[in-house]
Amino acid sequence: MAVLEDELTLVFSALADPTRRAIVERLARGEATVGELAEPFAMTQQAISKHLKVLERARLVSRTRSGQSRPCVLETARLEEAAGWIDRHRQVWAGRHDRLEAHLAALRADDPDEGKAK
Amino acid sequence: MAVLEDELTLVFSALADPTRRAIVERLARGEATVGELAEPFAMTQQAISKHLKVLERARLVSRTRSGQSRPCVLETARLEEAAGWIDRHRQVWAGRHDRLEAHLAALRADDPDEGKAK
Repeated sequence: MAVLEDELTLVFSALADPTRRAIVERLARGEATVGELAEPFAMTQQAISKHLKVLERARLVSRTRSGQSRPCVLETARLEEAAGWIDRHRQVWAGRHDRLEAHLAALRADDPDEGKAK
Repeated sequence: MAVLEDELTLVFSALADPTRRAIVERLARGEATVGELAEPFAMTQQAISKHLKVLERARLVSRTRSGQSRPCVLETARLEEAAGWIDRHRQVWAGRHDRLEAHLAALRADDPDEGKAK
């Protein structure tokens, strides 16, 4: 559980930067080399490599072994874990509203004035 | 667009901390005062207040105006924005696989050796 917690921290930290989110957006369209990633950003390959290290540490990105260029690949399983955590808390909240509704319905049923003119 | 980008940075930064995620988990079950939030964490109210400020800045949490206790409420719209960003990039990736499949099918159809014994 502690490991999972730390992994979520790494993933959310990695996504908390506009350049790194832009890299994820680019890789969602297909694998790319560091050179290809650096192009649209007006950034040095060194600066991009630094951001890629953060994404790799969070295991959002991996490098393939094909040839010298070693293109970057998006690891969607990690995105799914992060989305899963968020979704769980949206759903719990929705459930709470249902419980509130049920509770209010029960209160109305108990109310002796219910259905009478006041 | 720049504003939206900054908002996502604030939201993902806020979620990149186990204590703040635990606060979100607790608030997903219903509103709570700072005192109630501090209880299970073995933390001072001051430490919890600091985390709450980060969550409020990201607009993941708001304070209600009901009485002196001003309980904290989870703002699920912000969670949905963050989940929406992640979902968009999982879907683009899935689309890419479909395109790859279509491309491979087209290659096979063009292959004159297709269907022959080698």
